[in-house]
Amino acid sequence: MSRSCLAVILAAGDSTRMKSSMSKVLHPVASRPMIAHVMAAVASAGMTDAALVVGRDAERVAKAGSIDGISVQAFTQTERLGTGHAVLAAREAIAKGYDDILVAYGDVPLITATPFAAAREKLAEGADIVVIGFHTANPTGYGRLLVKDGELVAIREEKDATDEERKVTWCNSGLMAINGAKALSLLDSIGNNNAKGEYYLTDLVEIARAAGGKVVAVDAPEEELTGCNNRAELAYIESLWQKRRRHELMISGVSMIAPETVFLAYDTEIGQDALIEPNVVFGPGAKIDSGAVIHAFSHIEGAHVAAGASVGPFARLRPGADLSEGSKVGNFCEVKNAKVGEGAKVNHLTYVGDAVVGAHANLGAGTITCNYDGVNKHETRIGENAFVGSNSSLVAPVSIGDGAYIASGSVITEDVPANALAFGRARQETKPDRAAVIRERALALKKSRQKS
Amino acid sequence: MSRSCLAVILAAGDSTRMKSSMSKVLHPVASRPMIAHVMAAVASAGMTDAALVVGRDAERVAKAGSIDGISVQAFTQTERLGTGHAVLAAREAIAKGYDDILVAYGDVPLITATPFAAAREKLAEGADIVVIGFHTANPTGYGRLLVKDGELVAIREEKDATDEERKVTWCNSGLMAINGAKALSLLDSIGNNNAKGEYYLTDLVEIARAAGGKVVAVDAPEEELTGCNNRAELAYIESLWQKRRRHELMISGVSMIAPETVFLAYDTEIGQDALIEPNVVFGPGAKIDSGAVIHAFSHIEGAHVAAGASVGPFARLRPGADLSEGSKVGNFCEVKNAKVGEGAKVNHLTYVGDAVVGAHANLGAGTITCNYDGVNKHETRIGENAFVGSNSSLVAPVSIGDGAYIASGSVITEDVPANALAFGRARQETKPDRAAVIRERALALKKSRQKS
Amino acid sequence: MSRSCLAVILAAGDSTRMKSSMSKVLHPVASRPMIAHVMAAVASAGMTDAALVVGRDAERVAKAGSIDGISVQAFTQTERLGTGHAVLAAREAIAKGYDDILVAYGDVPLITATPFAAAREKLAEGADIVVIGFHTANPTGYGRLLVKDGELVAIREEKDATDEERKVTWCNSGLMAINGAKALSLLDSIGNNNAKGEYYLTDLVEIARAAGGKVVAVDAPEEELTGCNNRAELAYIESLWQKRRRHELMISGVSMIAPETVFLAYDTEIGQDALIEPNVVFGPGAKIDSGAVIHAFSHIEGAHVAAGASVGPFARLRPGADLSEGSKVGNFCEVKNAKVGEGAKVNHLTYVGDAVVGAHANLGAGTITCNYDGVNKHETRIGENAFVGSNSSLVAPVSIGDGAYIASGSVITEDVPANALAFGRARQETKPDRAAVIRERALALKKSRQKS
Repeated sequence: MSRSCLAVILAAGDSTRMKSSMSKVLHPVASRPMIAHVMAAVASAGMTDAALVVGRDAERVAKAGSIDGISVQAFTQTERLGTGHAVLAAREAIAKGYDDILVAYGDVPLITATPFAAAREKLAEGADIVVIGFHTANPTGYGRLLVKDGELVAIREEKDATDEERKVTWCNSGLMAINGAKALSLLDSIGNNNAKGEYYLTDLVEIARAAGGKVVAVDAPEEELTGCNNRAELAYIESLWQKRRRHELMISGVSMIAPETVFLAYDTEIGQDALIEPNVVFGPGAKIDSGAVIHAFSHIEGAHVAAGASVGPFARLRPGADLSEGSKVGNFCEVKNAKVGEGAKVNHLTYVGDAVVGAHANLGAGTITCNYDGVNKHETRIGENAFVGSNSSLVAPVSIGDGAYIASGSVITEDVPANALAFGRARQETKPDRAAVIRERALALKKSRQKS
Repeated sequence: MSRSCLAVILAAGDSTRMKSSMSKVLHPVASRPMIAHVMAAVASAGMTDAALVVGRDAERVAKAGSIDGISVQAFTQTERLGTGHAVLAAREAIAKGYDDILVAYGDVPLITATPFAAAREKLAEGADIVVIGFHTANPTGYGRLLVKDGELVAIREEKDATDEERKVTWCNSGLMAINGAKALSLLDSIGNNNAKGEYYLTDLVEIARAAGGKVVAVDAPEEELTGCNNRAELAYIESLWQKRRRHELMISGVSMIAPETVFLAYDTEIGQDALIEPNVVFGPGAKIDSGAVIHAFSHIEGAHVAAGASVGPFARLRPGADLSEGSKVGNFCEVKNAKVGEGAKVNHLTYVGDAVVGAHANLGAGTITCNYDGVNKHETRIGENAFVGSNSSLVAPVSIGDGAYIASGSVITEDVPANALAFGRARQETKPDRAAVIRERALALKKSRQKS
Repeated sequence: MSRSCLAVILAAGDSTRMKSSMSKVLHPVASRPMIAHVMAAVASAGMTDAALVVGRDAERVAKAGSIDGISVQAFTQTERLGTGHAVLAAREAIAKGYDDILVAYGDVPLITATPFAAAREKLAEGADIVVIGFHTANPTGYGRLLVKDGELVAIREEKDATDEERKVTWCNSGLMAINGAKALSLLDSIGNNNAKGEYYLTDLVEIARAAGGKVVAVDAPEEELTGCNNRAELAYIESLWQKRRRHELMISGVSMIAPETVFLAYDTEIGQDALIEPNVVFGPGAKIDSGAVIHAFSHIEGAHVAAGASVGPFARLRPGADLSEGSKVGNFCEVKNAKVGEGAKVNHLTYVGDAVVGAHANLGAGTITCNYDGVNKHETRIGENAFVGSNSSLVAPVSIGDGAYIASGSVITEDVPANALAFGRARQETKPDRAAVIRERALALKKSRQKS
């Protein structure tokens, strides 16, 4: 569609019921602010410019809404005089002249591009106003869409509806598309001669029809129109988002034993034939390749897991973790900003940070890359086929050569050449029969503590 | 309300379907015995004394029911001859003379103070008996509450009900309030001339009315009256409790990404704008301040997390953990009986027990406070801005001064003065080309094992 | 029942909607391939031989289906010409002569023995064909079972049904039992004179009746007949399985605080009065004895937990872990192929692999058994009442005697006699005021990095 398109996103609500220190639309769904979800939807529907109508946290909201390189202009709505008034806060943007104007809401984040695309098509076919409606089993309280001969003749509010009209289950979502050329004149015609003295966007239906314009309605699934007014509703929206995305992934060939315990981020990518066990949490930026296995109780963010690699149970991959094919990161292991080579094993109680682990290297249980000196992060390099004995400390910057062997319990502070053996541990001393002495002292201390 | 009030809690059921080694009412909901939930509800309704009618585990039940400093007297019901008989097991208490008598059930733990308070109000207005009823979509099997001119005229059992009466959806919960002055005489009038030869509390409706008394009913939500007869029902009750409490917290401004995966204890406190990620389990005594973040897979019990502090993922806070503002306890870390100072970092694979960690101190990955000598626990003190290198062992009692620096992999057994540097690790030795020797030996061993 | 019985299991479906690199019936439910669930059901119904009709992965499917020592023969169906054709792929087996033939489906894994047993009883009473039906609230699309005078007179397909017939809610599941003596002749009578040109097993009803035979239907719960066509349905089947098994366990006296977060394997055994906290995952081969407590976030596979033992939170038991009475494995601990003696404690951040831990031994936080030399696994023996100080490395093969005491932070490479004290750590050196030097260097490095 080559028509120009401005999306006006209303995000100025007071959101007092959120009881939040930040604007409602900044609250995340699937690790992404609600406002960004809405922006992604209108962007996918071909929107070229966006006007955000914001209240509090204007700067943060505008920033959060700026995705995919789309130009976003923020307009502050200082008074709250209804949706019609809110859209006109973006007058300056609307006045630039667009073919299509879309009206979306920052707190209706499950909306997809589909209804907006359908609405734009109707505009292209000559409609002046396109209302986005939804079918619902429980229409009570919603304005009903009254259609005749394919045109939307009215949005009837509950209180004004006849018994017959109340039976209508197609309702007004509030989302809308407007003929850009006529938008300002239509919007300026909205009055506030009503009980609350507010300017209602829904009046456009009557106004446009009175001016001889064509008004139609298109449909969106009810779920996509779920709005958010408090944190219980936010959690409900999150649950709908997760359910939708999990289903998509399963249908595409991803196995989930207990999908309801897998939490995805907006950009989580998982390849076919990957297996995600119960209780896995993805933060942003996770990419799981085909055939990888993510065991239970794993937490993955900003990380890549290649085909045939295995993660967890109880593993944490932080940003920059890059697991090569057939590698393994096991229980109580944390990997951050580190490449784990093909077939390498990081199996137990290990911290690998700012490191490169060579192919087929083996890190024993309790290995720690000591990457931080209190000020700087340093790199650890572990060569291919190197063996790092359990409970070793690798004090970075340090390099362990290919095929090198680190004795268990060592503190390694200097580079180890390829194929060398390195120790960094004290020799054992054994004192026969001395455990009793230790115990007696300890018991004596216990007694003295009890007395005092 | 200045009227005196005795609560009689029936907790003597055999509970064989629980298949449990302890009394049903001792089983916990939200980390608290069911009996204590019931006690909390009647206490909130202004109950001043409590009589527990118990069967098995009398002592434990009485102890578990003694909350909030309320005097609890236990009466053992030796025979099981119906609810009327059970209440009379507490005859001695009832005979002391109270204005109001409340009858509750130890295995109906979701009950709140509200219906009891409403019932007491009715007693104060002159009712002799107040039945607590509930509305249900599925009344089959329950006794129906038949009301006329505002009075409860009968509780009609299913089997005796006419078709018309069966359509009534207001049902008898079994909970009740009784005019204290008349209680004994009314209770003593209950007969056992029925199929099972038992004494039914519900007979009080007829008895009181026959004596010219006033009987009314008040309402309680069906959910609050859910009873527990087996462990599947116990889990269902737990789920209702959790759902109710999570919702309250979300409405009060707590964010939960996946509330269904957050398990709260009866006394969990969470401040506004705190974020609880998926899969968090709270034991008793947790207090999370405003704006704290509890990341996924955290387990918190008896601990305090101050504003802006961050916990997890994969962290465990045990009793006595006290995290100051802006501090951080990260993955695979356990903190027990320890103060973590403002902005201090305990980020990876660390055990901090019986310790004081100064503000802005940094504990490297794998740090262990060695607090136990096999008999006693000892304290570790870590000064402000101290840096503890990764994989260090701090052998308590030991004190690390402000700004001190512990080299990675050290075993620290003696106090370290402020701003000092301490080492406790062996010097590294490197043997060129010796890894091959190690590997050859290992392979030879492997072969010899395979032969044998 | 002493009648011989062959089960023909159809498992040759293309399963393209699974988008899988392996046959659908190999996908697991409760840690066991679907095909094995079906085999277990028919085996419990007294089946003596099994014929698997397979397509892709024939060998793997046959292997996965060979459970409980039952003889399984695989037949490859090369063309897909309908269910009747599929069953005849096993002609050779059927021809051997059995009293009863059962027809089951590899992708209907929730089926239990009960309906098959009922069907076999009908065969024994003289029926030629027994159709397994199910009652459903939503019969649309299913063939309706039309019964008259106790006999099944027809399976009416949706498209051929009258309005009256469509109201029938008893439907055809596709599962069936056939008189073995007549089976081949009946099956050979199925024609393909229909729209798709396929051979339908359901035609047997008409064929048998036309030959004067008796056809009846038995009932199975709808849930047991849930089929699997994609991975979302696989997850749904898993959820039904889990729900069913959790309920059984709870009713038998196992406490689960949040059953929906407990994931069981097909063979998980849990004793009465055990407590399973939220978020526990069982792999195959777990046996939890009466009164054990599995705390939150535990992962247990191939392990035994004796009465009164305590696991987790955040513990992982791998195959061969054997926890004795009253022992404890705590947070961030992994136990593999190891006996943990009575009352022994493995409380924090510990790896115990290939080991024997004596009764009442205590392993401090961060203890690691260094069991792997890069090629072989070696054993660690820890005596009764031994105390292993925190952060110690036990380099296997090594033996710690009864009552021995290992100082914290030690690397133990040689055996320690009973009651001896062993050290293996460097002496601490403390350099006053040197922390500042370290920090200055680190800050200088930081500056130089920033410049570059």
